[in-house]
Amino acid sequence: MTVLILTCDEDVTADMVVVHLNASGVPVVRMDPADLTGSVALSGEFAHGTFHGHLSAGGRLVSIGGLRSVWVRRPGAPAARAAGASAWLTEESSQALYGMLRGCGARWMNHPDAAGRARHKPWQLRLAQRCGLPVPATLITTFPQAAREFARRHPDLVVKPVSGAHPQDPPRAVPASRVSPEADFAAVAHGPTLLQRRIAKRADIRLTAVGDRLLAARKATARGADPDDPGEVDVRFAVSDEPWRPAGVPPRVAAGVHAYVRDAGLAYGAFDFAEDADGTWWFLECNQSGQFGFVEVDTGQPIARTIAAWLSRPGPGKAAPAGGAHSVTAP
Amino acid sequence: MTVLILTCDEDVTADMVVVHLNASGVPVVRMDPADLTGSVALSGEFAHGTFHGHLSAGGRLVSIGGLRSVWVRRPGAPAARAAGASAWLTEESSQALYGMLRGCGARWMNHPDAAGRARHKPWQLRLAQRCGLPVPATLITTFPQAAREFARRHPDLVVKPVSGAHPQDPPRAVPASRVSPEADFAAVAHGPTLLQRRIAKRADIRLTAVGDRLLAARKATARGADPDDPGEVDVRFAVSDEPWRPAGVPPRVAAGVHAYVRDAGLAYGAFDFAEDADGTWWFLECNQSGQFGFVEVDTGQPIARTIAAWLSRPGPGKAAPAGGAHSVTAP
Repeated sequence: MTVLILTCDEDVTADMVVVHLNASGVPVVRMDPADLTGSVALSGEFAHGTFHGHLSAGGRLVSIGGLRSVWVRRPGAPAARAAGASAWLTEESSQALYGMLRGCGARWMNHPDAAGRARHKPWQLRLAQRCGLPVPATLITTFPQAAREFARRHPDLVVKPVSGAHPQDPPRAVPASRVSPEADFAAVAHGPTLLQRRIAKRADIRLTAVGDRLLAARKATARGADPDDPGEVDVRFAVSDEPWRPAGVPPRVAAGVHAYVRDAGLAYGAFDFAEDADGTWWFLECNQSGQFGFVEVDTGQPIARTIAAWLSRPGPGKAAPAGGAHSVTAP
Repeated sequence: MTVLILTCDEDVTADMVVVHLNASGVPVVRMDPADLTGSVALSGEFAHGTFHGHLSAGGRLVSIGGLRSVWVRRPGAPAARAAGASAWLTEESSQALYGMLRGCGARWMNHPDAAGRARHKPWQLRLAQRCGLPVPATLITTFPQAAREFARRHPDLVVKPVSGAHPQDPPRAVPASRVSPEADFAAVAHGPTLLQRRIAKRADIRLTAVGDRLLAARKATARGADPDDPGEVDVRFAVSDEPWRPAGVPPRVAAGVHAYVRDAGLAYGAFDFAEDADGTWWFLECNQSGQFGFVEVDTGQPIARTIAAWLSRPGPGKAAPAGGAHSVTAP
């Protein structure tokens, strides 16, 4: 039974996981769907109620029925590098590849349905709150008057993108920034804007959930930091000598995170929290495809090994129902 | 409680449904997400565990909590017509709009998660078969040798797109066509190709499922039709004097279709079948956003009224869980 990794060639974080899979002798096939109709090929025949088929990457063949798990890491758009690349070819290739893989019976990190849904920030905030994780007051609006009114009630504010990263190639992260309550909010009419009460934080928390395993890291806010420094607001842009250090997870937070990944149907999630002066961890977001290499490098926590172990676990041993490992059910 | 219809301005099929909603006095707001940051605006504040907010279209305001149902008909890409339109603005607007609507507690026709999944043709074939609907042998491949081998076993073949319609604007349907078993299959290496055993049919069946209601229509194949005429293979391209006529649904097919829409989590589906000489209905596809106006015009079946009735039913009366009306669950 093989582990299938869908990611781009430059993904060095995936390399970290492949090392562990190789060490434990688990067969791995890695491919970028962007190479479809080039070095990647597929074929599946539907007969007697199921697809029998295989994928081929760089000359290696793997049976779709022989996959134990699929890791959707950072795949390119299907057939994006094909000779006759077009939106139509990408759509056809995407439907063919993911349509067939949906029936393969393997375990997913993460399933495409769960991944697509988990990207919605408003949805994240509701789920986090329902799971008992504290969420700062948040406004998403295109009404300048609503923004002004929110800023009057919450004068200490940050503004951040509603979606994750800017969709250029490669994706560009947009930093969260502080915004003055006296700001001119007229521009929010030109695009949905997310305003959030700023948490006066003493540390940033990155909690990586891999199945049931939670690995948390903490980066203390530098003493005397300038609160207008963008790095002070958005740790991804911080220039700091302070490293990430392993941190224990408070039991209530652990219970909330376990509930979140279960309800979201996620096998992997990178949670960002802000720790305030009282020690409360405020939920900021959960990125279902968040990076983890920088945490592992700083803390020495075995995140890559934990992912490899999750991917290596034996498959379900039988084909999933046509509804897939994740079925849509009424409430 | 209001019905929200997301569709483009030119959608005359939606007009047919709006007529019935208006006649029964149900409040309706219709908007195209493409008009976001123009004539469409949104605002939602997250506090105390949920989003409180509203949408505005053409000056009309509707509370997100006051929606009884959402009909995702043929919406444009969010903010596609905004002054500063860009892929980034579309992504931000999409996350804001659909992210908020996901928490609104309304009933969906169809829920975005179910709709996205239901588009996958390989997934459709597996589900149909599992629900007891007969499916013709099908191959999806980029391997010329696999295509040749399939054509040898099934010399009477059609080729069709893996996905639905060509993604140009407006979308263009690509006809299914017959293909000779002696064809040169070398070109399948350039893009995934779907080959399917042709059903020698005596009629086309279009079955429209609206909730639990099934409305079937039948169009007899013209006697002495040229089997190489594209219209004979793909009814959407047929030039025929034969109208669509109402048809009864065989009990086994009805049971299969009910199971399909339930397992797929769909409130609406347009099923295409080919009826063979034995009277068997072969499943070809289920288009979760398929047109129905042409069937209603020919048959007089009350499809628009049935959709209006489904959309009008009282809402659930309470907010859905954060997981949405459709939650992702383990198998």
